[in-house]
Amino acid sequence: MGGSSNRIDDFSGVIDLESVVPRRVSPPPARGFFQALRQSLREVFFPDDPLYQFRGQTSFRKLVLALQYLFPIFQWGSQYSLSLLKSDVISGFTIASLAIPQGISYAKLANLPPIIGLYSSFVPPLVYAALGSSRDLAVGPVSIASLVMGSMLREAVSPEEPALHLQLAFTATLFAGVFQAFLGLMRLGFVLDFLSKPALIGFMGGSAIVVSLQQLKGLLGISHFTTKMGLLPVLESVLEHKPEWHWPTIAMSFSFLGFLFAARHIGLRWPKLFWVSAAAPLASVVLSTLLVYLFEAQKRGVQTIGHLQGGMNPSSVSKLLLHGQYLALAVKTGLVTGFLSLTEGIAVGRTFASLKNYQIDGNKEMMAIGLMNMAGSCTSCYVTTGSFSRSAVNYNAGSKTAASNIVMAGAVLGTMLFLLPLFRCTPNAVLSAIIVAAVVGLVDARGAARLWRVDKLDFLACLSAFLGVLFFSVQTGLAIAVGISVSRILMHVTRPNTAELGSIPGTQSFQTLVHCGETRRVPSCLILGIESPILFANSTYLQERIMRWVREEEERVSTTKDYSTKCVILDLGAVTAIDSSGIEALTELKEALEKRSLLLLLANPLGAVTEKLYRSDAVELLWKNSLFLTLADAIAVAVAVSGHWPPTRG
Amino acid sequence: MGGSSNRIDDFSGVIDLESVVPRRVSPPPARGFFQALRQSLREVFFPDDPLYQFRGQTSFRKLVLALQYLFPIFQWGSQYSLSLLKSDVISGFTIASLAIPQGISYAKLANLPPIIGLYSSFVPPLVYAALGSSRDLAVGPVSIASLVMGSMLREAVSPEEPALHLQLAFTATLFAGVFQAFLGLMRLGFVLDFLSKPALIGFMGGSAIVVSLQQLKGLLGISHFTTKMGLLPVLESVLEHKPEWHWPTIAMSFSFLGFLFAARHIGLRWPKLFWVSAAAPLASVVLSTLLVYLFEAQKRGVQTIGHLQGGMNPSSVSKLLLHGQYLALAVKTGLVTGFLSLTEGIAVGRTFASLKNYQIDGNKEMMAIGLMNMAGSCTSCYVTTGSFSRSAVNYNAGSKTAASNIVMAGAVLGTMLFLLPLFRCTPNAVLSAIIVAAVVGLVDARGAARLWRVDKLDFLACLSAFLGVLFFSVQTGLAIAVGISVSRILMHVTRPNTAELGSIPGTQSFQTLVHCGETRRVPSCLILGIESPILFANSTYLQERIMRWVREEEERVSTTKDYSTKCVILDLGAVTAIDSSGIEALTELKEALEKRSLLLLLANPLGAVTEKLYRSDAVELLWKNSLFLTLADAIAVAVAVSGHWPPTRG
Repeated sequence: MGGSSNRIDDFSGVIDLESVVPRRVSPPPARGFFQALRQSLREVFFPDDPLYQFRGQTSFRKLVLALQYLFPIFQWGSQYSLSLLKSDVISGFTIASLAIPQGISYAKLANLPPIIGLYSSFVPPLVYAALGSSRDLAVGPVSIASLVMGSMLREAVSPEEPALHLQLAFTATLFAGVFQAFLGLMRLGFVLDFLSKPALIGFMGGSAIVVSLQQLKGLLGISHFTTKMGLLPVLESVLEHKPEWHWPTIAMSFSFLGFLFAARHIGLRWPKLFWVSAAAPLASVVLSTLLVYLFEAQKRGVQTIGHLQGGMNPSSVSKLLLHGQYLALAVKTGLVTGFLSLTEGIAVGRTFASLKNYQIDGNKEMMAIGLMNMAGSCTSCYVTTGSFSRSAVNYNAGSKTAASNIVMAGAVLGTMLFLLPLFRCTPNAVLSAIIVAAVVGLVDARGAARLWRVDKLDFLACLSAFLGVLFFSVQTGLAIAVGISVSRILMHVTRPNTAELGSIPGTQSFQTLVHCGETRRVPSCLILGIESPILFANSTYLQERIMRWVREEEERVSTTKDYSTKCVILDLGAVTAIDSSGIEALTELKEALEKRSLLLLLANPLGAVTEKLYRSDAVELLWKNSLFLTLADAIAVAVAVSGHWPPTRG
Repeated sequence: MGGSSNRIDDFSGVIDLESVVPRRVSPPPARGFFQALRQSLREVFFPDDPLYQFRGQTSFRKLVLALQYLFPIFQWGSQYSLSLLKSDVISGFTIASLAIPQGISYAKLANLPPIIGLYSSFVPPLVYAALGSSRDLAVGPVSIASLVMGSMLREAVSPEEPALHLQLAFTATLFAGVFQAFLGLMRLGFVLDFLSKPALIGFMGGSAIVVSLQQLKGLLGISHFTTKMGLLPVLESVLEHKPEWHWPTIAMSFSFLGFLFAARHIGLRWPKLFWVSAAAPLASVVLSTLLVYLFEAQKRGVQTIGHLQGGMNPSSVSKLLLHGQYLALAVKTGLVTGFLSLTEGIAVGRTFASLKNYQIDGNKEMMAIGLMNMAGSCTSCYVTTGSFSRSAVNYNAGSKTAASNIVMAGAVLGTMLFLLPLFRCTPNAVLSAIIVAAVVGLVDARGAARLWRVDKLDFLACLSAFLGVLFFSVQTGLAIAVGISVSRILMHVTRPNTAELGSIPGTQSFQTLVHCGETRRVPSCLILGIESPILFANSTYLQERIMRWVREEEERVSTTKDYSTKCVILDLGAVTAIDSSGIEALTELKEALEKRSLLLLLANPLGAVTEKLYRSDAVELLWKNSLFLTLADAIAVAVAVSGHWPPTRG
């Protein structure tokens, strides 16, 4: 729409003002302070209204409901049947076959003895089965949390002190659990939302590559390896220790890697054959162990797990370090791993719940995961959560309830009691191959490409997190990811969009002039849509930006000889909140515009904004007669007040 | 509006659908990536379009404009006249009479030799006069920045090392200047906006009290005083050293304090008598010095400034510590004091600019203040900025241009060269009284009360910052203030408001059901207004909250036997942005609602949201036929599609 085509000789074609009886905005119903506080606290902390099913029930029923609410096992347990049991046993054994090799491998990733991985696959699943509300979540150690815990502890404590390392791991697990349960109890789950999905894609991709690089030690059979995690030091270390490369190990590594990838491909391609990919890790372990045993490969330099002490989880309460110089490190590690594992657990739980069309309660889930880690820290377990790979297998194997976790825990217990000697000859290389095959699925290149297409800023967040993990450290990557996510929100509020609106001929609707071809300018009026809350962080900016709109409008009017501007109307339809600085800014703006003989009117305020305006002094003094229900009302008044009909040329 | 009164038997009374031809939203005009990037960068960094006056000018004129842009002195200097000079000389001498005692006092507050305060009132005003764009700003040391610098350095370095202290102060000033100039150069001024006004009120009030408490040392004549800043340790120290209280000093302190407060009151009450309050500090200094000299009070234990070495600012380049163990401390102190002094300077500049109805360019102002501090750090000055008290006096004294700063600098130079010996007998107690009288004006109890009335959350931010300064430290208070301000924005986005809308009978307008009494429910439709951008941080929340609205609507329908719900319509009029997580959330929501046989329609999207939706795959698959220009369009389609006319009862 060129400048001159906007000139029109009367209002009739633009907006039907005859039918408008200007409606001012009436003050909102009075709410007491405590009533308002109660309402907003409810919206913040209890948006899901968790207790709605308790309303209007008998006391006994309320007791039963409360018990079922706290321990979901009573809910599904009371309707448990033989056919459910059959499904749960099948899926339980299937995930156990995956959990045992993964548990051993991930414990090595966290720099802990392999047996800790098995311990961690026994107690936490039992606790979760009683408290968790997801039917598909299979819990146990996961790769990212293991990696982060290992790298954070390794930075501060030399790996030559395995006992201290173990103590710190248990202590960090305790704090992770406390943190998670606290978030759940205080209903602060939204903290997790600050890790945006794009940032998470980048973070996961970077972590997967870092984890895979760490596995080069096992895959190549190197004995001396850097303790650093970055891309460059690891590659440097690998090339530097080329003489240590052990060719028989390498041959074995890559054969099994090929086998695992093939199995993974089959599982993805034909979902009915999911058991091929689920059973592949255990099959690899069994096969490689047999090979080592038969060919006595240990004597030829192939590194193996070695002797493992069997038995059930010993208590680790005495190993918790609740004071001393390492407390701060344990708390920090606990917070970071707790945050990460909770994010993964909740996301996995939500994903499968939406597939089966049931809802999980995020805050309850956090408490379950938190209590499970607190219990774990006292029984020689390290951080656990719902694992994506195992939950997917669980889902595909047809699990019906959390009982599959109990079956899995039973299978792990049996292994710990009777089968551990068999793992003596299991080569480390195969464990590394299992890790690589598991984490490669976390690299979501297609997701990143979609981000590039839809939203460049999202892509930037993703890329920064990815590069941060790869070249600095996992924690740096995480900090970058959260930082970018948060600054994006802040940026959106600090530099909000403003747009000039025009009316859609023949209606009382208005649209952005640029976006919608049909719209026409309303003569003598500059109508601006403010697309953000008006808060301290943008009140100065908005004032300046609106003054620039006015200046540009005046330039346009003098160039095109259009009707001179009499009135500036702000459409507050997208102003979702206003604070005291915002009200002050509007007042200052009104005064500044009056010095230029321009009238400032406000239209279309949302409830919260009306309430705030009426509560300040400003409305009585300034806004009472300038606040209208719709834009059409404001325009009708603007025309009447400016006293020029038809408006004179500029 | 009760439940049953909402039931109506046909649509005619609620909304006039006959006249509606449903209009879908057409895709926005295509914009290339770089075009979009350029536009959004322009909006972020150049919202004020600073170069607009350069457009369409000759090269020579452009050169002149550029010179005037960089050095505003060329702009006002070319039109300078004798009458302007007269005003500027008067106001320049007036602020000098205030600046000299304040400079000496504030330097003591920062733990620096008094002469540094005078040095800092000489070079920076000259630099500012050439570069600054405000006509009223009077620059020099200020209380808050002095206090913060003093306390931050004192925490790390013992006051027994005055030479190191001085070096650190100059180095911190350099970094403050670099930081300020960098913010200006990169046009990152919005960083300052994150200190919200409520937080600033609390912070200033707390700081004023802390500063006043520190003055008890001088006012009571105590020799041994705590180096801590908190309320409790200071009061404890004062009471502990009661035997040191020096009664002659106390008598003098409180007489002059009374005099200064009386003068301040007169200045506030009768603006024409502003010179009474402006001259009071110098009068106090002169009078008290005379008294001490005449009665030889020094010998009776009254502490005085003592000998001051005269002369112009010596170079301090060699004193800058650009490496070594204290570098981090200097950088940190520089950043904090730079941030604080910039906030004060810009706020003061804007206040007086709006009083005289001219605009100052925030980013240019930051560069001026930054360069002034960089120059100051090399000429024995510490952090300076525009001071509120001196600028107010400058304004009242009728300053017309920045030349008043030059006059003031001249007066300070004269003092340094010839009048310093006169200060030998000036008692410390009077300097303390001057500080107390100056900072008490920063306590804005009336502002805090207004916050309580308008916005409880703003009041909470104010109170927390106040208590943080008072009981912990100035830096803690500042961190709390910024933290609360930022989390308020995040909270607003994370837990957005959703509201059920109804139509205003006889129009095509819609309003919140609760806020507007005239509105009526549209039968069979649940219309929800979403009052926030849909981003990763709230997409899960919004999904859950909307599902709860649906559940509650179904309960209402079954209770009141109203028409059963067929369709959920989201009013996106206040959804100012959407990201990839948001689009995914809408898609999931649509699927979840379809499983309940409910249709999800979107209406009234803003330009940015339409663009994002059309750029994702989602719109082709799902939204193309569900995205409408206005709510009325969506309702018309909802009625037609649901295939029930009139709708059946629930």
